[in-house]
Amino acid sequence: MRTHFCGELNKSDLNSQVKLCGWVNRRRDHGGVIFLDVRDKKGIAQIVINPDTANTFKLAETIRNEFVLQITGQVVARANEMVNSKIPTGEIEVLASHIEILNSSKPIPFQLDSMETSEEVRLKYRYLDLRREEMQKRLRLRSKVTHFMRDFMDSNDFLDIETPFLTKATPEGARDYLVPSRTHEGNFFALPQSPQLFKQLLMMSGFERYYQIVKCFRDEDLRADRQPEFTQLDVETSFMNEDEITSLMEEMIRGLFKEVGNIDLPSKFPTISYKKAINLYGVDRPDMRIPLHMVDVNDIMKDVEFKVFSGPANNKNGRVAALKVEGGASISRKQIDDYTKYVSIYGAKGLAYIKLNEDGPSSPIIKFLGDDVTQKVIDLTEAKTGDIIFFGADKSKVVNEALGNLREKLAHDLNLYNKEWAPIWVLDFPMFEVSDDGSLNAIHHPFTAPSVDSKTLIDNPEDSLSRAYDLVINGSEVGGGSIRIHQSDMQKTVLTLLGIDDEEAKEKFGFLLDALDYGCPPHGGIAFGLDRLVMTLSQTESIRDVIAFPKTQTAACLLTDAPSSVSKAQLKDLNIKVTLPTRV
Amino acid sequence: MRTHFCGELNKSDLNSQVKLCGWVNRRRDHGGVIFLDVRDKKGIAQIVINPDTANTFKLAETIRNEFVLQITGQVVARANEMVNSKIPTGEIEVLASHIEILNSSKPIPFQLDSMETSEEVRLKYRYLDLRREEMQKRLRLRSKVTHFMRDFMDSNDFLDIETPFLTKATPEGARDYLVPSRTHEGNFFALPQSPQLFKQLLMMSGFERYYQIVKCFRDEDLRADRQPEFTQLDVETSFMNEDEITSLMEEMIRGLFKEVGNIDLPSKFPTISYKKAINLYGVDRPDMRIPLHMVDVNDIMKDVEFKVFSGPANNKNGRVAALKVEGGASISRKQIDDYTKYVSIYGAKGLAYIKLNEDGPSSPIIKFLGDDVTQKVIDLTEAKTGDIIFFGADKSKVVNEALGNLREKLAHDLNLYNKEWAPIWVLDFPMFEVSDDGSLNAIHHPFTAPSVDSKTLIDNPEDSLSRAYDLVINGSEVGGGSIRIHQSDMQKTVLTLLGIDDEEAKEKFGFLLDALDYGCPPHGGIAFGLDRLVMTLSQTESIRDVIAFPKTQTAACLLTDAPSSVSKAQLKDLNIKVTLPTRV
Repeated sequence: MRTHFCGELNKSDLNSQVKLCGWVNRRRDHGGVIFLDVRDKKGIAQIVINPDTANTFKLAETIRNEFVLQITGQVVARANEMVNSKIPTGEIEVLASHIEILNSSKPIPFQLDSMETSEEVRLKYRYLDLRREEMQKRLRLRSKVTHFMRDFMDSNDFLDIETPFLTKATPEGARDYLVPSRTHEGNFFALPQSPQLFKQLLMMSGFERYYQIVKCFRDEDLRADRQPEFTQLDVETSFMNEDEITSLMEEMIRGLFKEVGNIDLPSKFPTISYKKAINLYGVDRPDMRIPLHMVDVNDIMKDVEFKVFSGPANNKNGRVAALKVEGGASISRKQIDDYTKYVSIYGAKGLAYIKLNEDGPSSPIIKFLGDDVTQKVIDLTEAKTGDIIFFGADKSKVVNEALGNLREKLAHDLNLYNKEWAPIWVLDFPMFEVSDDGSLNAIHHPFTAPSVDSKTLIDNPEDSLSRAYDLVINGSEVGGGSIRIHQSDMQKTVLTLLGIDDEEAKEKFGFLLDALDYGCPPHGGIAFGLDRLVMTLSQTESIRDVIAFPKTQTAACLLTDAPSSVSKAQLKDLNIKVTLPTRV
Repeated sequence: MRTHFCGELNKSDLNSQVKLCGWVNRRRDHGGVIFLDVRDKKGIAQIVINPDTANTFKLAETIRNEFVLQITGQVVARANEMVNSKIPTGEIEVLASHIEILNSSKPIPFQLDSMETSEEVRLKYRYLDLRREEMQKRLRLRSKVTHFMRDFMDSNDFLDIETPFLTKATPEGARDYLVPSRTHEGNFFALPQSPQLFKQLLMMSGFERYYQIVKCFRDEDLRADRQPEFTQLDVETSFMNEDEITSLMEEMIRGLFKEVGNIDLPSKFPTISYKKAINLYGVDRPDMRIPLHMVDVNDIMKDVEFKVFSGPANNKNGRVAALKVEGGASISRKQIDDYTKYVSIYGAKGLAYIKLNEDGPSSPIIKFLGDDVTQKVIDLTEAKTGDIIFFGADKSKVVNEALGNLREKLAHDLNLYNKEWAPIWVLDFPMFEVSDDGSLNAIHHPFTAPSVDSKTLIDNPEDSLSRAYDLVINGSEVGGGSIRIHQSDMQKTVLTLLGIDDEEAKEKFGFLLDALDYGCPPHGGIAFGLDRLVMTLSQTESIRDVIAFPKTQTAACLLTDAPSSVSKAQLKDLNIKVTLPTRV
C-alpha cells in the first residue's frame, strides 16, 4: 500500500513517484494551495495539493485532521524560503497527484500536543494519546530495552521458560488476585506476584539458567508508581554465587544503558551495606547523585538540656542526626516551614536547623544547645559559612525516613545533583525485621538464604544478615534478588523463625519443601522491574507513561471501563456470588 | 563454582584441572573403584574415584543418585576398552581429587528414564520429570523458537508492546476466566482470551507494526491438546493487505523451521479455499501429507435403489462421497469394523465400502447399486485392483467429519504420508456459519473484514466470504488471522447481522466502536499458537510435553495442588462468596 514512509523521505528521493500512507497531522490552506502534514510511524511529510489537480483538490478540501490517507505523488524540493531545517523531511514536499481517503475522522476530543488535557481524558482516549510522538518514543524505547535484555540473556545461555499464570496463592506480603475455578468448584487460582517458586523449581529441574520477561500481579493500594500488573525481567541460576550473579547483571545493565540510552555507567558499580545506607541516607535505596548525607550527633546531644534532642539521644531506639546542606543558609523561613510540613508526613514533629550566616550560627535552638555543642555539630558536619544544618531527633525510623526523604526533596528543589547517573548495589540486608509485637518478618521473602549458619541464625535472628542484593539507580530500586535457601533444614529453620508452622508451610508450599529433598542445587537470582527501568531510562515520573494501556490509581481502565459487572449466569457457573447489595 | 560443564569435556581438555557441578545420574562400583556419571545442563561426564584418595573415596561411598556435587579433578583419557563413542565425553573421564556434596537427595520416587511412570506421578514431581533429557531438549527448542520469532519480528520493524492481562470481558465464544476486583466492589476483570481488541487499538494508535508473545486464557472443557493458559505470537499491522501479511509470516515460518529444525519448507506455501478443503478433505485444517481425498458421488447416487445413498444424494443438505485408498483391499473385515466404530464418533451410521479384488469388485452394497453405478464410482475415484473405496452418505457435515477424520486415521494406521512437511494456507472462509435456529455466528470473530461490500453482505450473508487466513501444517492449525474491519459502518453492519444490538455492542466494546470513528487505518494481523508450533516442531503428541508446568485436562496443577480453597477473609475482602455447601 506504500512505497515509502513519510518520515524517511529526503532529498535523495527527489523526483521519485511515491505512495504514502498516514494520518493528517495538520491541514493548511495557503495561497490557494492545500498543505497537509501527513504522519506515519517514521515521521511527517508535507503534501501539496494544487488546484490544477481539480478532483484531488476538491477531495482535499473535505480532509480534516486525523483522516487516514493514501497519497500518490512526486517528491519535489521545497522553495528555499519554505525549507524547514527542524525536521528531517524539511527540504522536500510531495506534490499529490492522487489521494485516497482510507478513513475519515470525527474531530478528536483533545489536541494531541496540548499539555492541558487531563490525564483522565487521555486515558479514556488512550488510542489517541498514544499517537503523540512522546508516547511513541517511550514504547519504542521499551521494546528496545526488552530486545536488549533478551539478547543478553540468550547469549549468556539463559533459557526463556514460561511459568504459569494460574497458580496457587502464596504469602508474599501483598495481596493476591484470585481467579475462581469452574472445573474445581469453590476453589481458586491466584495470579502470580512473581514466578519465585517456579523459578526455584526450574533450578531443581536442572535448567541451571532461566530468564523470563513476565507480567506479575499485586492487588495493593496503588501508589503513584505502582500498577496492579507490572512486568519484570526474572532471572535465576544455579551454581553461581552473589558476586557472579551481580557482576553478570551489572554487565547487562551497563550494556543496556549504553545501547539504548547512550549512557555510560561506571565500569564497576559501587556497593553499600544496608546499615550504612540507612545511616547515611535514611533509605535502603539511596540516590547517590546527591552529595548530602546524615551525620550522627547522638553522642554530643546526650547531655544537652534540649529534651527534644537529649530524649532520643539517650533512647536505644532513638536517633539524633544532622543533615548539612552547602549554601543552604539562603533557604527562606517560608521554605523551612514547607520542609517542616514535608517531614511531618514521615512522622517528624518538627525540623530544627542551624544557619551559618556571615555573622555566625543562627537558630532558635542554639540557646538550648549552648555554643560548645553547636560548635561540635559544625565540626562534625564540616559546615561552613553559608551552609544550613537540619536536624532530626526521634525514633530512628522516623529520623531516617524524615531526613532521608528531606535529602531527596532538597536535592530536587535546589538541583543538588553532582552526577547524572548513580547505580549502587545495596548488600548485607538483615534477614528479618522485627514487628512491634516482636515477631519476625522476612525483609525479602522466606526463601532468601542467610549468610550465617543455622545455629547463629536461631541464636540471633535479629542481627543475622541475608545473601540478598538490590540494585538502585538514581534512588530507584530497579532490581533485587538473593541467593536462595537450597537445603531443607535451613528452609525449615527460617520458616519456624517466621512463625510458619509445619502444617501451614506444607499447605502453602509443600511442593517446594519436598523438592528441596531431591537434589536441589545451590541457586540464586534477581528480578528487575521493567516499568521502573524504562521510567528511569526515559526520565519520566509516571509509570503510566511507559505502559500502553495502564490502570488508574484505583486499578481501573478508563478506556475499556474494566473492571465491570458480569452476568449472574457467569457467576453461577463459577459457583460464586457477589455479597454486595445490587446497586441500581 | 565450576571451570567447565560436564557435557563439554573432551580430549582437548586432557590433563586439565577442572571443577564441575552437577547431579549424580548413576553410580557404579567396579573393581574397587567408584564411577559416577555426573550430569549438568550440557551433558554427562564420568568421574572416577580411586581408593587411594581415601577421604574422597569414603565420601563417595555415601553418594547416591541425584546428589548434587562439586567435583575437583583432572581430565584423563579412558582406557581404550572403556571408550564410549556414543556420548561426546566418551573418550575422557575425570579423576576426582576432591568432592563436595552440595546437597543430598532422597531416593527419587520414579526412575527418570522409565517410560512406565504414569503421567500423574510425573506431573506431581514435575521438577524431577523435567530433568529428563527429552524435556530439557523440548524446552530448549521452545526457547529457540521464541528467540527466532522475536528476532524476525524486530528486524521487520515490529514493536513488542505489552497489552493488559486484567481486561474487560469480551464475547469470543469460549469462556472467560474472571478476576474479582477489590477496589471496585462487585466488579470483575477478565483474563484475555487474546489481545485482539488491544492490538487493533494499537493500530488506531499509529504503531503500525505490533507483535507480542503472550499468554492467553480460555476456560473451556479441555481437549487433549488444549490448556487453560496458552501462548501465542500475536501480530498486527496497518497498511498491509492479506497477501503482504501472509507472505511475511510465511517467510518467518520457513526461516523458523530451517533455523530451529533444519527443515526445508516449500519456497511458496500452497493455498486452498475453505470450500475446497472441506470438499476434498472434510476439514478446514487439511493434512496435506496424505494423498487421499474425497470424491463427490452425489450425482450418480440420486436414482439408486439403496436409500442410504439416494436419500442424502437428493437432499440439499446431504452428501454422498467416496474415499479411495490405494492398496486398501488388504484391510481386514475386523479393521473395517473398527473404522466403522471410529466414524460413528462423528455421527456416521455405517461405513460402506467396495474392495477391488483380483476377481472384481466385492462389497455387500454392490447388489443395491448395480454394476453400472459401481463402475461409475470406480471411474470417478480412478480406483484400481487392490484398492478399497469407502463411502459416507449423510448430512454433509456428518460425511465431511466422518470421512475427513477417517482419512487421517487411515493415513496414521497405514503410514500413508507422501511427504514429511506440508504447510498450506486456507483462504476464503465464509463470514458466518448458520446455527440450527437460523442465526448467524462469526466463523472467526466479529472484527473480521468481509471480502464484499456492505450491501452484498446484508443481501446474502451466508454466502459472503471473509478476508481471513489460517496456516495449517501437517493437519494442525498453527496460525490464523484476518484483515479487520476498519470502518465504523461496516462494523455496525456485521454486529447487526450477528444479532448484537447497539446497546450490547456499546457495553461490550463501545471503546473499539468509538475508536473506529477517529481515523482507524486499514489493518490486519495473525496469531500463531506457540504450544502447537513447538509440538509440531518437536513431533510430540501432547501439549504438556512442551510446557514446563502444564495443567491437567481438568485444569489443575498436580505439582502445586492449584486451584485450592482460600480463606473467608480473602473472599470477604473481594466481596464474593462461594455458593457451594462447605465440604468436610
